[in-house]
Amino acid sequence: MKNLLSMKDLEVNEIEHILNRALEFRQGAESELDKQYTVSNVFFEPSTRTKMSFEMAERKLGLHVLPFDAGTSSTLKGETLYDTIKTLESIGVDAVVMRHEKDEYYEELSTGINVSIINGGDGSGQHPSQSLLDLYTIKEEFGSFKGLHITIAGDVSHSRVARSNAQALQKLGAIVTFLCPPQWQGEFDSTSNWEEVLPLTDVVMLLRVQHERHEADETFSKQQYHEQFGLTQARYNQLKPSAIIMHPAPINRDVEIASVLVESEKSRIFRQMQNGVFVRMAILESVLKERF
Amino acid sequence: MKNLLSMKDLEVNEIEHILNRALEFRQGAESELDKQYTVSNVFFEPSTRTKMSFEMAERKLGLHVLPFDAGTSSTLKGETLYDTIKTLESIGVDAVVMRHEKDEYYEELSTGINVSIINGGDGSGQHPSQSLLDLYTIKEEFGSFKGLHITIAGDVSHSRVARSNAQALQKLGAIVTFLCPPQWQGEFDSTSNWEEVLPLTDVVMLLRVQHERHEADETFSKQQYHEQFGLTQARYNQLKPSAIIMHPAPINRDVEIASVLVESEKSRIFRQMQNGVFVRMAILESVLKERF
Amino acid sequence: MKNLLSMKDLEVNEIEHILNRALEFRQGAESELDKQYTVSNVFFEPSTRTKMSFEMAERKLGLHVLPFDAGTSSTLKGETLYDTIKTLESIGVDAVVMRHEKDEYYEELSTGINVSIINGGDGSGQHPSQSLLDLYTIKEEFGSFKGLHITIAGDVSHSRVARSNAQALQKLGAIVTFLCPPQWQGEFDSTSNWEEVLPLTDVVMLLRVQHERHEADETFSKQQYHEQFGLTQARYNQLKPSAIIMHPAPINRDVEIASVLVESEKSRIFRQMQNGVFVRMAILESVLKERF
Repeated sequence: MKNLLSMKDLEVNEIEHILNRALEFRQGAESELDKQYTVSNVFFEPSTRTKMSFEMAERKLGLHVLPFDAGTSSTLKGETLYDTIKTLESIGVDAVVMRHEKDEYYEELSTGINVSIINGGDGSGQHPSQSLLDLYTIKEEFGSFKGLHITIAGDVSHSRVARSNAQALQKLGAIVTFLCPPQWQGEFDSTSNWEEVLPLTDVVMLLRVQHERHEADETFSKQQYHEQFGLTQARYNQLKPSAIIMHPAPINRDVEIASVLVESEKSRIFRQMQNGVFVRMAILESVLKERF
Repeated sequence: MKNLLSMKDLEVNEIEHILNRALEFRQGAESELDKQYTVSNVFFEPSTRTKMSFEMAERKLGLHVLPFDAGTSSTLKGETLYDTIKTLESIGVDAVVMRHEKDEYYEELSTGINVSIINGGDGSGQHPSQSLLDLYTIKEEFGSFKGLHITIAGDVSHSRVARSNAQALQKLGAIVTFLCPPQWQGEFDSTSNWEEVLPLTDVVMLLRVQHERHEADETFSKQQYHEQFGLTQARYNQLKPSAIIMHPAPINRDVEIASVLVESEKSRIFRQMQNGVFVRMAILESVLKERF
Repeated sequence: MKNLLSMKDLEVNEIEHILNRALEFRQGAESELDKQYTVSNVFFEPSTRTKMSFEMAERKLGLHVLPFDAGTSSTLKGETLYDTIKTLESIGVDAVVMRHEKDEYYEELSTGINVSIINGGDGSGQHPSQSLLDLYTIKEEFGSFKGLHITIAGDVSHSRVARSNAQALQKLGAIVTFLCPPQWQGEFDSTSNWEEVLPLTDVVMLLRVQHERHEADETFSKQQYHEQFGLTQARYNQLKPSAIIMHPAPINRDVEIASVLVESEKSRIFRQMQNGVFVRMAILESVLKERF
């Protein structure tokens, strides 16, 4: 693939290829890139996990990584995003990993740009590398997606992760249920009844409560959210023995999940981060191999 | 050369050497440095293009690059610039690429410091690596500078680029005309009549309108500037077939140049950025080769 | 050693090992690390010297260095320090060099974390890599610590360096005297009489006056401080011929030390910074060798 913009663009066989290649990297495979490529991580919104995970993946692949500082970039002098990325292209950057607050920012880069774009998150849109590492973690656990019951719980309407994941999981044969406060369901159908979904669920995918987006319409405290919609110890105890818990992080402890459950037996939260590096190696390799 | 501070310091044969070596790098030549050198890019003013271009050049030369964060540096605790650079020297840095808001900041580093300084822009003073890449781009196009008519258009009085380029171009035999609003001409003679200069011009060097410097004395809107002093499509059409357009970027589209002309046939704007990496490789190599 | 948190944790033989290994690195020894390790410099407080010194040491050891930007990290989204460091562990980081404004921040990382921590400064607590480079510089000069008279002068109560150094120097057999304004002595005994200590002193360790901590209770101007408690030329002239001057920097010139003395014959200030790189190579190697 030339770019990775949205999970919508990926065929099932492309997803499978990424997941298989990530497994090979996890088992120690070496990069198949035969040229010295240069990438840059262009993050206009804060990120620790995604950015550092890509940084690690890039070093493991032996890439040159040019530091980009959004806080002092020429976009502050009014430069268009197109001109900024065209500049990176001119300098010799092969691929850009980008996060930007604007939904589908990459549309304005769709013509005239010869840098590969890997979307590291666009506004309330997509976050495909997170989706792919989530898929990897589920596949690693269950072998396949067919018939799995996945419960995505939290701020569904504002979540990049929820959108990306729901689309991909359904394409792969899983059954997705959203659990959230009714005012947060956005375009999706949802339930707010944990007891109804717990006995069926194979994977609980928790979303981060984005306090920064909910200051005005706050209708419940953190504690109230936790009691009504969070994963409490009591709910954890009702899960199937084979069920697992996932969270993209950063975690609000004792809000979307009880603090004691973060490293519990069913939690794959830090495992997801481990897997993320290998999935991103697969993404980068796949994109860079298509360059001449 | 030990340092690169100002175009004034460069003899014609030194300029020629840099341009020739940049061409060799463009054609695939390898670094002649036989030691592991370390550099740091010390930018006290924002920059995407210049900083990232040097970062790329440094990686292509196989240098170690130490990240320097001006926003969290000890200069915030009142350290002198001399002591900051002396610190880098002590740590083992061989050369510093520096941008600073103070004109000729490097004067206070002229004694006692054994780090090579490459000036990445000082206040309203010089920007020699930009000048050299501009010269490279012109030479690439026309083969020589003798008798070429160069029109430098824009905020002449505040432009580092205008000063550096004018000095060097005249030394090399070109004929330089400044075109700007009369109140922006500073110490230079200028015209504000495009029609007069267009038929003669071989190279239009546009300068960025620095809105941040013109808030108080604003005498025309962006649109008025564009119509009177910018490169419009109508003016473009009057240029000689062999003429080219240059701009150091970042570009204010539809202010100093019509947006549609940024990637027009005569434009060398992104070509300049490509060339910049090779010119900076030549500068770094030349400076580092003089270290023992 | 698995971590380097505080000078209190180091046995005399561990200190000796670091200093000896640093000397070997200074003389050109190569890294004994036989694996590709990855580190990250996680600085929640500004630093030029310490951070860049570690960056250089890391490159000389051939480590991968993942950039961490505290200003855009997920701690801004309320992530706990534990979760941030656990994230780095999951991504594959072997060791973290950390500075944090909280005293003994590393206590909350003492269980559950499998990343080695090298303390780059905690609040008003410890700064062990600075202490070790100070010890190295003294040993380089005098061969041993037994019976040396060390005068630590300045803001003793707020200084990480004073605490770390005093503990270590006494353990190694030196005699430590604090010299400071009475209101700055904190838990330590001190004198404010230079004339009393000058004839005996082998090493003057100056501390930085931290103006940012003394705005409210300012009882003397910079000039008054210099005259009463700073190292003036007159006091310098009373030092023994063999005495040396040290300062951790950044320096307030003409406050804790007369500007003309910064690079005087007895000054080891920039020598300390040179030594710092080799000491930090020894620290990093020692910590990473204990990983499997």
